[in-house]
This record gives sequence, C-alpha cells and structure tokens, in this order.
Amino acid sequence: MNQDYIKQHPWSIIEEGFDPESVKSSESLFSIGNGAMGQRANFEETYSGETFQGSYIAGVYYPDKTRVGWWKNGYPEYFAKVLNAPNWIGVQVIVDTQELDLATCKKVSEFKRELNMQEGWYKRSFKALLPNDVEVKAEITRFLSLDLDELGAIQYELELLNSDAEVRMVPYLDAGITNEDSNWDDTFWNTTKVSSNDNRAFIAAHTIKTNFETCTFMQASAESNGESINIDETSKTENFVSLHFKHKVKKGQKIKLTKFGGYTVSRNHESSELVKAANNVLDKASKIGFEDLLKKQALAWSAIWEMSDIVIDGDVKAQQGIRFNIFQLNQTYLGTDSRLNIGPKGFTGEKYGGSTYWDTEAYCIPFYMATKDEKAARKLLKYRYNHLDKAIANAKKLGFDNGAALYPMVTMNGEECHNEWEITFEEIHRNGAIAFAIFNYYRYTGDYSYIPEMGLEVLLGIARFWHQRVNFSEEKNKYVMLGVTGPNEYENNVNNNWYTNYLAKWCIDYALEQLSKVKDGYPEDYKRVIGKTKLTQRECDQWKKVADNMYFPFDGKREIFLQQDGFLDKELIPVADLPKSNRPINQKWSWDRILRSPYIKQADVLQGFYFFEDHFSKETLEKHFDFYEPFTVHESSLSPCVHSIQAAKLGRMEQAYAFYLRTSRLDLDDYNKEVEEGLHITSMAGTWMSIVEGFGGMRVINDKLSFTPQIPKQWKSYSFKVNFRNRIIKVMVDKDHAYFEFSGDEEMTIRVNDKRVALLPGKTVKV
Amino acid sequence: MNQDYIKQHPWSIIEEGFDPESVKSSESLFSIGNGAMGQRANFEETYSGETFQGSYIAGVYYPDKTRVGWWKNGYPEYFAKVLNAPNWIGVQVIVDTQELDLATCKKVSEFKRELNMQEGWYKRSFKALLPNDVEVKAEITRFLSLDLDELGAIQYELELLNSDAEVRMVPYLDAGITNEDSNWDDTFWNTTKVSSNDNRAFIAAHTIKTNFETCTFMQASAESNGESINIDETSKTENFVSLHFKHKVKKGQKIKLTKFGGYTVSRNHESSELVKAANNVLDKASKIGFEDLLKKQALAWSAIWEMSDIVIDGDVKAQQGIRFNIFQLNQTYLGTDSRLNIGPKGFTGEKYGGSTYWDTEAYCIPFYMATKDEKAARKLLKYRYNHLDKAIANAKKLGFDNGAALYPMVTMNGEECHNEWEITFEEIHRNGAIAFAIFNYYRYTGDYSYIPEMGLEVLLGIARFWHQRVNFSEEKNKYVMLGVTGPNEYENNVNNNWYTNYLAKWCIDYALEQLSKVKDGYPEDYKRVIGKTKLTQRECDQWKKVADNMYFPFDGKREIFLQQDGFLDKELIPVADLPKSNRPINQKWSWDRILRSPYIKQADVLQGFYFFEDHFSKETLEKHFDFYEPFTVHESSLSPCVHSIQAAKLGRMEQAYAFYLRTSRLDLDDYNKEVEEGLHITSMAGTWMSIVEGFGGMRVINDKLSFTPQIPKQWKSYSFKVNFRNRIIKVMVDKDHAYFEFSGDEEMTIRVNDKRVALLPGKTVKV
Repeated sequence: MNQDYIKQHPWSIIEEGFDPESVKSSESLFSIGNGAMGQRANFEETYSGETFQGSYIAGVYYPDKTRVGWWKNGYPEYFAKVLNAPNWIGVQVIVDTQELDLATCKKVSEFKRELNMQEGWYKRSFKALLPNDVEVKAEITRFLSLDLDELGAIQYELELLNSDAEVRMVPYLDAGITNEDSNWDDTFWNTTKVSSNDNRAFIAAHTIKTNFETCTFMQASAESNGESINIDETSKTENFVSLHFKHKVKKGQKIKLTKFGGYTVSRNHESSELVKAANNVLDKASKIGFEDLLKKQALAWSAIWEMSDIVIDGDVKAQQGIRFNIFQLNQTYLGTDSRLNIGPKGFTGEKYGGSTYWDTEAYCIPFYMATKDEKAARKLLKYRYNHLDKAIANAKKLGFDNGAALYPMVTMNGEECHNEWEITFEEIHRNGAIAFAIFNYYRYTGDYSYIPEMGLEVLLGIARFWHQRVNFSEEKNKYVMLGVTGPNEYENNVNNNWYTNYLAKWCIDYALEQLSKVKDGYPEDYKRVIGKTKLTQRECDQWKKVADNMYFPFDGKREIFLQQDGFLDKELIPVADLPKSNRPINQKWSWDRILRSPYIKQADVLQGFYFFEDHFSKETLEKHFDFYEPFTVHESSLSPCVHSIQAAKLGRMEQAYAFYLRTSRLDLDDYNKEVEEGLHITSMAGTWMSIVEGFGGMRVINDKLSFTPQIPKQWKSYSFKVNFRNRIIKVMVDKDHAYFEFSGDEEMTIRVNDKRVALLPGKTVKV
Repeated sequence: MNQDYIKQHPWSIIEEGFDPESVKSSESLFSIGNGAMGQRANFEETYSGETFQGSYIAGVYYPDKTRVGWWKNGYPEYFAKVLNAPNWIGVQVIVDTQELDLATCKKVSEFKRELNMQEGWYKRSFKALLPNDVEVKAEITRFLSLDLDELGAIQYELELLNSDAEVRMVPYLDAGITNEDSNWDDTFWNTTKVSSNDNRAFIAAHTIKTNFETCTFMQASAESNGESINIDETSKTENFVSLHFKHKVKKGQKIKLTKFGGYTVSRNHESSELVKAANNVLDKASKIGFEDLLKKQALAWSAIWEMSDIVIDGDVKAQQGIRFNIFQLNQTYLGTDSRLNIGPKGFTGEKYGGSTYWDTEAYCIPFYMATKDEKAARKLLKYRYNHLDKAIANAKKLGFDNGAALYPMVTMNGEECHNEWEITFEEIHRNGAIAFAIFNYYRYTGDYSYIPEMGLEVLLGIARFWHQRVNFSEEKNKYVMLGVTGPNEYENNVNNNWYTNYLAKWCIDYALEQLSKVKDGYPEDYKRVIGKTKLTQRECDQWKKVADNMYFPFDGKREIFLQQDGFLDKELIPVADLPKSNRPINQKWSWDRILRSPYIKQADVLQGFYFFEDHFSKETLEKHFDFYEPFTVHESSLSPCVHSIQAAKLGRMEQAYAFYLRTSRLDLDDYNKEVEEGLHITSMAGTWMSIVEGFGGMRVINDKLSFTPQIPKQWKSYSFKVNFRNRIIKVMVDKDHAYFEFSGDEEMTIRVNDKRVALLPGKTVKV
C-alpha cells in the first residue's frame, strides 16, 4: 500500500481506485465496530481475490490449544483466540447468470471507499464491466448501530448502465467460517440450526469448548423502481442460508437491497431466547427503517465526538490521523460493559488473540477517563476486579501462595493465554500497571469508592505477589528481583529491572496506604476485606521491609538508574550509528543479538518516569531521557507516545512532534507494512495522550487539573475537551495563547504553566 | 516398572513374568542395535496392548517442520527427527484361525526375556493359552549381525502343548508406519514398490523431503518336525507384503520360522541397486545359516568385550549395570562410519531427535578413545570437520561473519535442529567442547595428524566465533560475554557464565598455539588453511587481546569463580534443605522459579574444572566443589559422572560411589520413570568415565598414562582395559592393591599415585 493511498480529509477515510494488492489493507482500515461487534471491510458480494475475512463478536473467543516447541511447567493449556464469527454481511449479486466478482470483472472504475467517522458509516461504490459485458454501478452503505448494538445494516444499490438484465440479489448468512491463525486447523464453531421465516433467516451456532451460543440473523427486502420484490427462493445448507430476490432490471434503472443483520449472543440473552431476541431487534429496526437508523447513527456519533474530538487546524493529515485513532478506540470499546475490554486489534483482525493486555491500564484508561463519563474507566477497573480470583489461581500455578495475585499478560476471561516463559512468567510488571491504574483513576476522577469496594483487594493481592517475588540478597543487603522481563521486551530474564523494582515498591507502599485509608474511612469494607484476605499486621510489616529495602541499580558516575543489572556492560552504540540495513532489528537480527545489544524496544526506565513523573525532578528526567532514548528503537507502537510526552515536558517540541507522527498515522500510512493484519488499536490511545498530556501538558496535581500548553510549529491551532470530575473543559491552543472554557455551575480552578487560573462557567479564559 | 524388575545377572538382562504395564519399558531395555540399525524390543507377533513401535536406520532422518509459539529470527526451519523405519521383524502367528496376541490370551505364563550382552542376542519365550484354548509355547531369538550390518535374524519356534492345530506363520514387511513425535502428524515415508520373489520380499520406500532411499527386505523359511514347509500364499498391499506358511502341527510338535531381514540404504549403495544389495546380503546369510550367524555374532561381541569390558567383583548389580552401559554404547556407535554419530537415545526411541549433541565430545569420546582403535574417535572428530561449512553458515544466520563457526546444539547433518532461543542461540559453550575434544584426542592418542589435516580449520572457525561473540565492557575494562546459557540449563540468558568465558579464552589460546605449531611443522597444511580462511596476523592479534583480557566473575571473599554475574544475589539455600515435595524441580516448579533459584542442573563451573583440572590446584577444586555441589540437583543424566570423578579426586569415595550409582543403573532401574521413551545412551559413557577416570583416576599427564586407583568399599575388586596409543593396559584394583599389565613389545612407563612405574610386556605389576 502506498503511503498516500488514503486521501486527505478531515472527517473521512477515503480510498479511490481499485487495487487488488490493497484489498486486505483496506479491509483493515475501513473496519467498522460498535463495541459489541465489528467486521473488517470485506466486500458484501463474492470476491475471489486475496481477502482476509473477519467478523467478530465482543467477548466471544475460542481456547485454541497451545502450540509450543518445548512445554514448560506453568504454561497455560490454551491460547484464547479472537474468533472469526459467522458472516452476516454477504450478498451474492448475479447479473444474467454472471456473478459479480471484482476480481473477475473486465473493468472496475470509479471505485471508492469512504469511512465517514463523523457519522459512523462506511460506503463503497464502483462501476464494473462484467465478463458478460453488462456494466453495473454499485453503491453500498453499511453501518453497525450504536443504538441497537446487536444490529448492522446494509443498503446495496445496483444500477444497470448499458443493458437490461435479470438481476439476482442473494443476501446470506454463512457459518462455515474458519480462523486464519488457528494453531491446529481446528474448527471453532458448531452450527446447530439453520432456519428462515419469510424475509428473515437465522443460524444458531455455538463455539466449540467455550459454548458461546449465538444467533446470526438477517432480514432482507429489495425494491426496484419503487416496486417491492418478493423472495423468489430460500435455500439452506448445513451452515448457510440465503434469500433470493430476482428481478428484471432495465438499463438505467436500479435495484436496491436492504439487509439488516447481526448477532444475539448468550452473554446477553437466555440461550433459548436468541431467535426471539433477534426478531425483536429486527422488529425495532424495521420500524425505524434504514434511513432513520442512519440518522440516529450520526446523532450517536455526534455525541461521542462532542466529548472526544480533537481539532487540529493547519494540518489535514494530522487532523485525519487523530480522528481515526479516536474513532477506532470508540468502535472497539465504549465503556459500557465491564465484561469486555480493549483488544489490541479491536474488531479488525485476529492477531495477538486475547482482548486484554497491560495496554488497557497503561495507555487506554487515561483516554477513557477524559473523554467519557468516569463510569467507563471504572468498568475497565472492575473487569480486573472480576478476574482477581483467576489472577490468584494464576500466581498459585507458578508457586506463589497466600492469595498473591498475578494478572495475566494476555487474557479473555482472566486466565493467562500467553506461553513464552520470558513473557508469561517474567513480564510481571503488568501487575504493577493494574495497581497504577487504580491510583490514576482516583487521582483523575476523585472517585474513591472503587478502592474500598473492589480496588483494595486487588492491591493486596498484587502486594502479596511482589513481596513473594523478591528475595533478599546477602551480597547487596537489599531485596532484589531476579529473572524478569521489563516493558522493553528486547531484554529477557534480567535481574533488577529498575522499572519493575520501582513499581513493586510503589505497589506495596500504595497498598499499605490504601489499607490504612480504608481502615479509617470505610470500616465495614475494611472488615470484609481483612476477613476475606486474612491479612495480618505481621504480613504488612514484612511488605514494608521489602518496600523500604528494595534495590535499585544505579550508576553513580552518570547519576542514572540502570535499566537492569549489568546494563553498562553492553556495547553502548546509539541507534543513530546503526547501519540502516540493520533496522528494524526485530526483523534483521537473531534474538540473542537483540538481547545482548543495548537497544530498547519501548520505554522501560522512561515508562517509570512517565508513571511517576512527580517523583523526579525535570533535570533527572532529562538525564535519563538523554541516556536511554538514543538506544531506543521504538519497535513497539506503544513507544513513541511516552517519549513524545516527555520530550514536550522537556520543551523539545520538534522531537515531541516527530515522535507524535510515528503513531498518529501508523496504520493509515501503514508504516510497518502490516496493516492488512488489522489495526493497532491500543496504541491509538497513546496518540491521544501525546496531544493532551504531551502538547497540552495536562496533569492532575493536588486534585487540580494543570496544563503547560505548547504547539508544534506545523500546526496553526489545536483544541480538545476533557471531562474532569464531571466538568467539561475545552482547551484551545494556538501559536500565541491557550484558551480555556468549561461548562458547569460553579467556578473552578486550574493551573496553567504552574499558575493558578480561575475559570467561570461559559467564559473563555485566555492565557 | 518395579526397580527389581530386571533380574540380577552379570552378563544378561533378564525379565521374568508378563506385565502389560512394563511392555513399553522393556521394549526400551531389550532394544538391540548394531551401529547401522536397531530396534526396540517390540514383539514379532501382533500385540494389541500398549506398545511403542520403533525401528531405526542410522543416519536416516526426517526434517520435521518446526513447531514454535512465536517465531524468532535465526530459528531453523526444521527439526530433524529420528525416524521410525519400516518394520521387518513382524511375524503374524495364527493358530486355528485365532491370532496369537499376548494382550488377548487367556493366560500367559513362563514369560521371559533375555538380552545376552556377552553374545549379542535377544531371546523371548513364553507359554500362552489362546482364546480358543489351544496352548502354545514360543521361543524367539533375534539379533542384528555385527558382521553383516544390514542384516537381522529371527528364529520363531512354536510348540503346541495341548492339541493339534493348523498354524499359520506370516512373516511380513510393513512400511505403513508413523512417528509418535511427529510435530504435525505428517507422514514421513513414501513407498514406491512392493515386490516378492519366492521366499524373499522387498519394500522400496524413501523418506519424504530427505529422500533417503531404502529397501526393507526379508527372507523366510519354515519347517516342522524336520520337514520344510512351502509358502502357501504371498500377499501385498500398497506398503505391506507378507509370506504365508501354513502347516498342521500335532500336539507336542514344533514349527520353526527363520526370518532374515533388514535394510539396504542409499547411503551405502546406488539407489537402483538396493534390491540387488539386499539379495546379496540374503545370499550371504543363507549360505552361513542362522546358527552359524549366531556363533559369529558371539565372536564379534567377544572381540568388543575383550577390549572394553569392566569386571566388578562383589557387586552383581554394578557388574550388570556397567556392562549394560558399555553394551548399549557399542550397539549405538561402533566407530566405523564418520557420517554417523551417537544419538542420545540410540536406536531405542524417538525423543530429542537429532543424533549429535555436545555429549559426544564431552562424554563419549573418552570412552571410544580408550576402548577402541584411535580411528573410532578420529571418525567422530572428522564428523565435525565435515560439518564445518554448515557451522559457518549457521553462525552467519545469526549475524556472525568472516568464517566464524557455530556448531549446532542438535544436528543430523550439520544443520541446527533445535529451536528454543535460550538453547539454540545461547547455549554456545557446545562450540568449545568441540575444540576441547580435538585437544583431548591428541593428548590421549598422540595422533597429531588430525590437527593439520582438519582440526586447525575447525579451531580457527571456533576462535573467530568467540572473538565476535564477546564485547568490550568499558565498565569492567574487560571483554564480557553477554546473553548465554551454560551447561546448567537452569539459567538462561546470563552474562559472563564462567565456564563459557573460560572455554572461549582457552579456545582462542589453543587455536593460536596450534596455528603456530602447524606453521612450523606442517607448512603445506598451514599454507592451505591460511589460503582458505584468509586469516591475518592482525586478526590473530585481536583474538589474543580478547583472550588476554577476558572477564571472569569472581567472589573474593569465598575465593570462587562465580557461575555467572549476579549469582550471589540468589537465595542460597542448599538442595538438601529443599522439601522433598519440590523435587525434581523441573517437574514441580515453573520455569521462572527454577531460573531465579541457585539450583544447578548439571556441572557448570565444575564442568570447567573437569576439562581443565590441571589448571587448578586440588584445593581450588575442593573449594568450588564444596560451593557448587550443594546447589546441584543433578537433573541431567550427564551430571553425576563429573561429580563422581571429582569426588574421587578429592578422596571422597563414599560420595563418588553415590554419584556413580545415580547413572550406572539409571535405565535398568528406571529412576526417572521414563525408560519407556528409550535409553539414555550418551550418559552411559559417563558411567564408564566414573570408573576409569574416577575410581581408577586415569589421566594423561605429559604424554604418560597416570592412575590413582581407589575402590568403593562395596566392591571386592574391579578391572578395566584401556587402549593407550595402541598398547592395551589392563588395570585391576582390589581392596589392597592395584595391578597393571599390558600387551606390547617394549617397556612402557606409567604413573601410579604420582610415582613412575615401569611396565614390562606380559608382566603384572602390583602397586
């Protein structure tokens, strides 16, 4: 895919011209989702060219049997796979016995895709000269309703350009689907019933092993020239059902098919009621009608944008990029269901499996806290609380006891899915990110209630884990943490990763602090939690001893914390001095070479400075940034945002902007030549952070919102809104000033560039 | 399997009584091989119970597609699998339409197996009451000829005990076989032709991908009561052929089937000549006849024993154990073919794939040097020389250049087969063992010719690798080696593993020394090697700088070299203090827990002290032994022997004997409950070393053989022979003295307990 393949437009993603080479990439980029389900932008009609078919239902996964070379104790038995679900979007189009298939047409012209992010729909249009010399023009609109989140809608309009013909439109449901990344070529679905009723059809299927019951459904109607067309035939096979509409269409006339479809699933309904629930959705949809559903869709998206839009003036590509990121995050997770989470590929591909990584806590929660009601972020926290028992079971499997909790690296249901020992068993810092998110949630929202209700138990389980995971080194007379992998996954099995040690100490301190706070302020909760966890003062004292005597590798000469023991033994050649031909090192170098090099995949020590910025002076940050960034290859999509924020903090706007650019259009411009596998959803939150926390300098300091606004010289102005404790603050920054306004009843105080600024409801303050 | 399952006997392995639970274990223990082929002791007749079928042809392997969770650059594409080969031993036995199958018989009695190690045959006998109430008595003798190494022979004798019956004996060949450990359930063989000719039959089959052409062949004859029985029928399918002998046998009479069979392979013959070659072998075998072949077999084994037997007086179990080890090593590799090597499971199972590990150089070569002509060991060295180009290619794949060579961890043909990054890329000390074996070969045999001819090139490639593998640490002002796995595989990706660093330095020093020696003494070879390797003085100078400035982790307080950087940060609890329930840790603990523990799988620092014993004082050895052994869990079959030798050296015979016991009957008594997978062939050489180098204290010091004989108090006496530079020295040790005699023409001098002892041909010297 060309890097200019996507047309510049502030609100839409547009592709013009048909290029079979780009079909799979575009299928990713034009994916649509509504938090409950989503699909890649596969063609509705048959396509025999290269395609990667994907429809996904949130929370419906398959426990694929693990594949390893050599089994190690503690490995999970399975790897939860994001599941390709039955296809409800298909519409076969046959013109005089010739099937429409863009891969076999004599000519395809005026091909265009548009993903309208403002209103939340996807449209595709083209002209095609079929092998039988009939030329048609098609326009297909599709969206997944935000209001009725079990429903999707398609309008497929076909015009005959050069002759009369008999047109058959055959909307179908197909449960005979497979996953591209199945480990053992297993089948994941079992179809139990295929049924139809007038213009509706249903396929009941459940996932094998996990037994998620689903009903994939559709309803179709067709008309031509204002005349409604009757169903000619209904055909069924074991896992397929189609409705046939046949009509003789004259040259210059159109035939239009409207198809509603989607899924009802046992997560939301009784298994026996799935068809009934599907009929209910279809009844509602029919009553409203396609056009009005589309209008409601625009309204729903408008409400999301009202809160989360970032407007950039003077840079259309940047504008398009940031909106694409915000749009995709909202397509993936809307903050309405604590059983769901933010998959790294959302509804755009199968890769990575699982839905939940530490990305959620470290990168996504700030976005959800600031652009939605606090309940959204709270749901993400609750998700982890619901998985606490499984985190305890996971730790137990690895030899920890007494209620120590280790959250999984990758999960769907709380169980660990990943199975590389250096990650699964050793990349344990993820546990700290979950505690940090609790702290961060309270710091930002001021909602303490989560901690006594749920968070404290999570914090105690995590503290117990860290306490058991360290050991006392007689040699160092300190507690050390051996055999870990930090956020920089280009180091494995290292000793005393500074970030992990620091986070562990912080987690223990924070847990003890909250324990005492809950004891004082929420005695009932305290009693319940102590009863459940059997925590003793003696245990707390032991934790404290660990936290107070944790070892941190430090280089006295340079006055920097070392990423891990022995880091200075490496050959410290900066990335800039590496031959270009060696990059990216994860594609060019063998793993041992990467491991013994000083090269850093993503922020590691600096991730700690990001989380705990207020623990260190700007000079200390600068010293560490200047030491580590030159060794950082940023080969994770989660890397540039942290560096962008820190560069901005250090007043290095050129560098901050350069980092910003590396993720803001990562997928749109397909930097890594892999967009066909799906989008990088979680890193999109990092782009949002780069603007709001980086350029805008937003922080919460002593319960007050604080900004240090700067602007990249490439932009004229930018603006964003944040929801801070139920007040909506709008921030606009141009070359010369920053402007603040907020909606609310009472005056509020913020800090701008370290000075107190009072805001009055409805008034704009210029700084 | 019970630990007393195998009867005590000085020369035979005997099992009495039929226990279906033990069938798979016994199939391993009673395996036979002749260096060119081998089989598990599968029953000839049909057996529907639990069995692990295995016939193997030396050097015939399959490149099974690699299975990994996450691919890493540099991983090999395939894993060479030891291949289950077509079955030639099968004989169906049908008595009055009832097939003989020990799993379905009403009663099996007097079941007995004997593996006669002295004469090299395997016999099985039993009485069985068939479901049709006919009782039979069977006696089956099988051996694989040492003289005709493509030939095996079976005599199957059946007696009717309680009634007359029609007996059908159906010898067959079956190429429809599979591997138990196929990664992807692929088929490994392709059968191209099934043919028969009178009483002979042939199956032509080749391995898929590797295209090893084989002809599996048989010839059968039967007689009863002195009367020869004609073939009644020949039947064939796609990959199966059988000859049918039918005869009415009276109660109390016998029927006897003689079957010759085996393989001819394209490694030794033109592909088109395989059937012809098979006919040749069968012609020879027919001419000699079963009985005389069996006599020749006893003679051939007698010649092997003459040289390699160890006699232990006063301990039958120990006697049986050591002979079993020596027997199995000889069944696996006879030192006659430099294209073959010593597979870790020999011809007794599929596990571990590949045929060659560093076990060969570190553990097996001493055995072959001392118990055979020097040519045997030289062939094992030549094997590595032949693979030098592939070792260079392997290093290149990992980013090394300029002719650096990294020998594979596991191989069949010189290419790497293993794919765990921590082993494949990091357990690089294997490279040093190959250089050490060259040194050791010359030290023992005095044959320098290998070095100018082949060894020097190997040494240079290895030196180049080490030179490139280290980096200079500004911090330590030394060369360091980051990211390695030592012999102790319970540590991964450590920095400055002392053993590896020490070996690397030694390799460079030794390579430079040999370079200079060859330059002076073998100018033609020197010219050729320099021309080929393009080695410059400047490069040698750089090597020297590395060797002279190598870093060795050292603890000044304890005065010990550290296994690796940071070893003292561990929680140093001795193994003896671990709860029993935690052992073996590789089954009870998750991998991270093992890695951060101080526990050592097999000799690591002490392996270095074993190789380079003469570099250190006895006091230094003692200090290191006393520090490391208490943390050693000996969970590798290669661990106890090194410790046994060192304990003996330190005069701790009780401990030395305890270590000796841990491997000498490892398989016979099935300590690890895994003998059904096959035998631990390479560690058997360690048992031999424990006696000869440990108890006998054999060393080569300044070109002289030296002994420090001791004896475990459990033994009355023991004796062994060694071939030292074409002189056969026999050593006998009893409670009070040691006795030495040798065959040869001239007087020779040895050292005993550090004193010079002159030996005269044919005279016994008592010390």
